[in-house]
Amino acid sequence: ADRLVIFAGPCAAESNEILSETAAALKEIATKLDIDLVFKSSFDKANRTSLKSYRGPGLEKGLQMLDAIKSQYDLPLITDIHIPEQAAEVASVVDVLQIPAFLCRQTDLLVAAAKTGRCVKVKRGQFMAPEDMQYAVTKVKESGNENVCLTERGASFGYHNLVVDMRALPTMRQFAPVVFDTTHSVQQPGGAGGSSGGQREFAPYLGRAAAAAGVDGFFVETHPDPSVAKSDGPNMVPLADMENFLSMLKESWELGKKYS
Amino acid sequence: ADRLVIFAGPCAAESNEILSETAAALKEIATKLDIDLVFKSSFDKANRTSLKSYRGPGLEKGLQMLDAIKSQYDLPLITDIHIPEQAAEVASVVDVLQIPAFLCRQTDLLVAAAKTGRCVKVKRGQFMAPEDMQYAVTKVKESGNENVCLTERGASFGYHNLVVDMRALPTMRQFAPVVFDTTHSVQQPGGAGGSSGGQREFAPYLGRAAAAAGVDGFFVETHPDPSVAKSDGPNMVPLADMENFLSMLKESWELGKKYS
Amino acid sequence: ADRLVIFAGPCAAESNEILSETAAALKEIATKLDIDLVFKSSFDKANRTSLKSYRGPGLEKGLQMLDAIKSQYDLPLITDIHIPEQAAEVASVVDVLQIPAFLCRQTDLLVAAAKTGRCVKVKRGQFMAPEDMQYAVTKVKESGNENVCLTERGASFGYHNLVVDMRALPTMRQFAPVVFDTTHSVQQPGGAGGSSGGQREFAPYLGRAAAAAGVDGFFVETHPDPSVAKSDGPNMVPLADMENFLSMLKESWELGKKYS
Amino acid sequence: ADRLVIFAGPCAAESNEILSETAAALKEIATKLDIDLVFKSSFDKANRTSLKSYRGPGLEKGLQMLDAIKSQYDLPLITDIHIPEQAAEVASVVDVLQIPAFLCRQTDLLVAAAKTGRCVKVKRGQFMAPEDMQYAVTKVKESGNENVCLTERGASFGYHNLVVDMRALPTMRQFAPVVFDTTHSVQQPGGAGGSSGGQREFAPYLGRAAAAAGVDGFFVETHPDPSVAKSDGPNMVPLADMENFLSMLKESWELGKKYS
Repeated sequence: ADRLVIFAGPCAAESNEILSETAAALKEIATKLDIDLVFKSSFDKANRTSLKSYRGPGLEKGLQMLDAIKSQYDLPLITDIHIPEQAAEVASVVDVLQIPAFLCRQTDLLVAAAKTGRCVKVKRGQFMAPEDMQYAVTKVKESGNENVCLTERGASFGYHNLVVDMRALPTMRQFAPVVFDTTHSVQQPGGAGGSSGGQREFAPYLGRAAAAAGVDGFFVETHPDPSVAKSDGPNMVPLADMENFLSMLKESWELGKKYS
Repeated sequence: ADRLVIFAGPCAAESNEILSETAAALKEIATKLDIDLVFKSSFDKANRTSLKSYRGPGLEKGLQMLDAIKSQYDLPLITDIHIPEQAAEVASVVDVLQIPAFLCRQTDLLVAAAKTGRCVKVKRGQFMAPEDMQYAVTKVKESGNENVCLTERGASFGYHNLVVDMRALPTMRQFAPVVFDTTHSVQQPGGAGGSSGGQREFAPYLGRAAAAAGVDGFFVETHPDPSVAKSDGPNMVPLADMENFLSMLKESWELGKKYS
Repeated sequence: ADRLVIFAGPCAAESNEILSETAAALKEIATKLDIDLVFKSSFDKANRTSLKSYRGPGLEKGLQMLDAIKSQYDLPLITDIHIPEQAAEVASVVDVLQIPAFLCRQTDLLVAAAKTGRCVKVKRGQFMAPEDMQYAVTKVKESGNENVCLTERGASFGYHNLVVDMRALPTMRQFAPVVFDTTHSVQQPGGAGGSSGGQREFAPYLGRAAAAAGVDGFFVETHPDPSVAKSDGPNMVPLADMENFLSMLKESWELGKKYS
Repeated sequence: ADRLVIFAGPCAAESNEILSETAAALKEIATKLDIDLVFKSSFDKANRTSLKSYRGPGLEKGLQMLDAIKSQYDLPLITDIHIPEQAAEVASVVDVLQIPAFLCRQTDLLVAAAKTGRCVKVKRGQFMAPEDMQYAVTKVKESGNENVCLTERGASFGYHNLVVDMRALPTMRQFAPVVFDTTHSVQQPGGAGGSSGGQREFAPYLGRAAAAAGVDGFFVETHPDPSVAKSDGPNMVPLADMENFLSMLKESWELGKKYS
């Protein structure tokens, strides 16, 4: 792509206020930095560690909340889907359907997403070789949808740890545009005992590295106050830091673009 | 458990004939070796590499085929489910609901399986630390079902390779009974280019090792002729070898039981 | 081999008393269990985490201490060498020269060890594929020494962790006899912050598993009181537990021998 | 450092001609790009896969060859040492003593290198957590030498594969300056069956990524014709590509320097 695309927003659609505050701030930054923005938030966190963990507002309420943001801020939306039957309903509001990493091989989910005609963004499974992501792309394309992209978010590296293999970026770009997920790639699965930990401090390093290697966009979860966020707090970028963070990513992305 | 439990059968419910031939032979072996047998076959292979790969007979026809085996051979059944809405229907026929490894963190699937009251067998994700499987067990139990077991089938180890960490067996047995999957643990994900490869030759070594470390049962996929099987051929044990294979596992299991 | 071989002793040659007490107890156990015993202790711990860590008595004094044990208890000896020039001197006293895992690709060390004519025992590097250990075997054999064996002690699995891949045992036995190192394979490199940690509690599980898979011998570090040992305390087996531990390994080894 | 430092040259000191041709070309590039150059070549490849593999000219002849380059081109030198007794002799000619990755925990080697007063460059072992490299730094400093740097060259990731964990760069820079090894990090250990393979095509991606994350220098092996090089051919950068390669690294390094 010629312009940089950023997928950003709070991990979960916690409240109208959080969504609104985040969308307003991100839109202003995107305009200032001249980048494309797709607003992200999840209506359901479907694989939390515990039954007691916060799940989100659910499909119906979540889509209403996202639709309100779309109207108010004129922003395209991205959100996760988890089962095939969610695809059509979500696609009535949301522009980009994201396939979670654990689910990247679930054929019916990929096909259902593809058939909506919306852009399908597939995250590389922590257990998948980069070259094997071509089969996910093929499943979407063979279902009649050429609008597909991939996402790098780290591979399993022993227990409670992920590693970002930068070779995955050029490998996967052979098949489809590639987005680098700057915040999930610093997660530590189960690393906090009963919930997932995170190493937010590494996000800028990995973000610059991926940008310079060459990618088509970035995914960044952000929150006005990550310390009180209802999920993924340890790895989200504070909203107040986003302008600097995105500006840095853009500068690095331009370097990568020149060479890749 | 005091008796050895074997979950065995062909990977996919390819045809009535294959199911019947396999069930008859396995039942005879189980009687001879005095072990408990749960017959396994899948109605749907939901995460094949390609859209063109064989999927199976589908839910309705598959359950009919499995039900016929159950009646004819008086055998309990196990099969995989992939989305929450399958749980109740499958549970009307099948005794053990298996949660695939990639899906072991999908809360709704675990809860739907639990609520059927059937035994829920959760496979350790290739990306999960053994101790983190306690959260899957807790999700089932907190949904009112104490009948849950876990399965070891290998962890991600670089690309196109899995490693069985034998420490996972005693770790997971702290939370629930543990079944060792002798045939998926020798899979090579994507290792055959466009499909998964397998190292059937290592199954006896890993099976004996796990048995001696201490487990509650084994899972073994078998087929009258793996070379023509419609899925997982490279890692299934030929039906003709099963008596020796299970006899060996039983002897090793008795040793493990003595010490663990 | 037809008889089980055990390589056992304290990690470091801390004192004549420790060596003597351990050798006497081990010899008695070996006689009782009818197994071959090779006494192990190191004169120098060459890769401790810190300059301040205990290193051992050094080459000269260490060889005297080992020689005294050999004479008094009529036991063959094994010890590590680290640089080629140690080979000949060590071989004048010690029966089996052990090549440390980090050094398994150092050609000059392998050749120098081989040229002594003594048995050369090469540990698989934590970074080596099992099949690549054939090149270490070839280096020894091409130096005129057929008396070579390999050792499994775990492979790198993320950071601060090792995993024992049981497939490595049959793979390496194609090239040479294989010894399973029950105590280093439960090390946690750097896992204790400034020194290596260990998970002694897993040693029996891994030992039984490896035995059942099939090996030619075992390596077990032991100490009268691991809690005060000057190195590798967290993973050594207490001397008082060794009879039960070795008896269990022998029973498991017989099962593995029957099938492999 | 304020200026970019490049360690470059042919893997092995194959001949005076190869050294000379490479040094001349590199010196010209370094002048043009205004970067510091340290010329690299090895007198001995001490851990080749086979006894029949090319080893190099040996210590004496190799040092003469390197000394000639130093005089003729007025370039500082770097080379590997493998055993402590080589340190002093090598240090009489060579400016930077490199400790190979497999040997990064060999205390005596680190101390001997440190005691020469020369700069000591320690490569991170493929089996070492980044934070554990602080102990190697401490060993050098406690031996009275503050002139120490570290090198990232990839970590074990399954078999026959390495992964560069970019988090290692900021982690290790807390302890010492860090050099990124662009060519060994794309090696595939044993990946070519009987010798190591390489993925030269990924070197620019990893180089840019590491540069943008932030490093103090780069290590690049180069050869006039890698296809006939006597070692590491599959991963060396052709000499004719070096100006573009180093220019790209410098631009990326400036970006990383701005942010790290």
